[in-house]
Amino acid sequence: MKLATLKDGTRDGRLIVVKRDNSAYALATNVALTLQAALDDWDAKEPQLRALAQQLEAGAVQSRPLDVKALHAPLPRAYEWVDGSAYINHVLLVRKARNAEPPATLRTDPLVYQGGSGDFLAPTQDIPLRDEAWGLDFESEVCVVLGDTPMGTKAEDADKHIKLVMIANDVSLRNLIPEELAKGFGFFQSKPATAFGPFALTPDELGAAWKDGRVHLRMRSTLNGQLVGDADAGPEMHFSFRDLIQHLTRTRAFTAGTLLGSGTVSNEDRSRGISCLAERRMIETIDEGKPKTAFMKPGDTIEIEMLDGEGHSLFGRISQTVVKAP
Amino acid sequence: MKLATLKDGTRDGRLIVVKRDNSAYALATNVALTLQAALDDWDAKEPQLRALAQQLEAGAVQSRPLDVKALHAPLPRAYEWVDGSAYINHVLLVRKARNAEPPATLRTDPLVYQGGSGDFLAPTQDIPLRDEAWGLDFESEVCVVLGDTPMGTKAEDADKHIKLVMIANDVSLRNLIPEELAKGFGFFQSKPATAFGPFALTPDELGAAWKDGRVHLRMRSTLNGQLVGDADAGPEMHFSFRDLIQHLTRTRAFTAGTLLGSGTVSNEDRSRGISCLAERRMIETIDEGKPKTAFMKPGDTIEIEMLDGEGHSLFGRISQTVVKAP
Repeated sequence: MKLATLKDGTRDGRLIVVKRDNSAYALATNVALTLQAALDDWDAKEPQLRALAQQLEAGAVQSRPLDVKALHAPLPRAYEWVDGSAYINHVLLVRKARNAEPPATLRTDPLVYQGGSGDFLAPTQDIPLRDEAWGLDFESEVCVVLGDTPMGTKAEDADKHIKLVMIANDVSLRNLIPEELAKGFGFFQSKPATAFGPFALTPDELGAAWKDGRVHLRMRSTLNGQLVGDADAGPEMHFSFRDLIQHLTRTRAFTAGTLLGSGTVSNEDRSRGISCLAERRMIETIDEGKPKTAFMKPGDTIEIEMLDGEGHSLFGRISQTVVKAP
Repeated sequence: MKLATLKDGTRDGRLIVVKRDNSAYALATNVALTLQAALDDWDAKEPQLRALAQQLEAGAVQSRPLDVKALHAPLPRAYEWVDGSAYINHVLLVRKARNAEPPATLRTDPLVYQGGSGDFLAPTQDIPLRDEAWGLDFESEVCVVLGDTPMGTKAEDADKHIKLVMIANDVSLRNLIPEELAKGFGFFQSKPATAFGPFALTPDELGAAWKDGRVHLRMRSTLNGQLVGDADAGPEMHFSFRDLIQHLTRTRAFTAGTLLGSGTVSNEDRSRGISCLAERRMIETIDEGKPKTAFMKPGDTIEIEMLDGEGHSLFGRISQTVVKAP
């Protein structure tokens, strides 16, 4: 089942079910007005939404052509956005880039941060940037939407709390990170609004690509029309979403609709390219002594999507342009 | 105007207006079902809620006796919980306690962290603790509820975005903080669910005590029946809520219902006592070479409230007991 949120002038938009080929949708507001409302009562709503999705595939319900520009993020605002950094190759490169040591517990204790979740960007929404010197970067990520997840959840029990899978652009302001982290309280100002891909899929839609709490698909990042990354999101995700959920719930519970991100998808094999510019800059520094790639500036565009084996865009395409903000 | 949220078995409870003396309430669900719904449409809802509050004071509307145990946190879940650390004395003591240097920008650049906001504790809800060794501490704080607050808001324009004032117990797990901060991604596991006081007040309810973006009232913390802190929340709040809002909005916007905390209220004058145990332990270390006060353990209770000049509990009382959790 593939869900999305149609802009309708309200804060949370309207829930729609999307055809598997992304061509059309049916309003799901008879089942639940919003995606958050569906998640709040998932056990009751999921079967009804699945029935509607089947009707849509069969042409047995009124449908309309889908325009990605008419979509919000699946959750335009959420109660929590917790983002991991589960790809070891990314952690090593980015820490090296800012002359910071990787944590001693790199491979045993997951890295996660609490992100802002009140005001997300839509899949095709411009990225506002007040100061080019802040070093705007994209980060192509996979994420999952949790149902109610109790404190003390174990990794082996985590799958049942994963309701949906999405993709994200975890926009970062690289040049603000060092001064923010030096204060010891996390990334705050260096993580502006995050954008999410158009469609939220139930894990079963991924078939065999959803395995061991990981998404075994390729994450394609296209910068200014040029494919810069085609990384496998599966095997090198050192901590799976199961592991991350166990980590998250050590000291508290999470409510339905919590978003949990993988961190930047990253492969050791350099031929797979990059899912953020910080990695390319670090590789340039290693190879040539200094970075030559600039961070993003107004006018630059980033497109992010995941294709299945037949080349279909499973989650739809994030397509954003940086614009100067006042 | 004094607002609160009645438990009714739903996730967000039901909005009520509370009498100024805390004795009775009237259901506000004819105006807005929930506090978040009221905040989402504040310009329209605020005058209607104020009218209801006036009727309640005048005995012109049906009211019921108020039992604080029947209340949720005013927002049982929120879209963001951003907590500052605006009392310099607290920063200095707590950093000293964990042998960490205060940041070089201590007095010029506010400290804020992004907290979890999906699952808050009610004012009288037990604090679940899975492991006593984690070092559970209370933190008595003031906080404000924001309306929609755009990116780039200046301190001098910030007041209009502050819709409500509340108090909070920003529960902390002191012994998990060093290892979490060492990883560089913030407090994550060391900040379990936060509790909030029963009542959310419009700033005008504070009269002259609401001044320069600060709450000039005393924050009383009572541990196991003994008053341990009676600190003035006003003058030593180095960064006002106005300053914090300017800091927050540097790189992104915030949605209505965002919660912004002051950090632990703290005074240089030791006779005012403490608003968290970490401070007392540091003072003991300075005076006697080592801390002798233990962190909280199952069975311990903490009560937090703010009194006005006549001794009335403005925001109601947070009253929580630590319980062993599985």
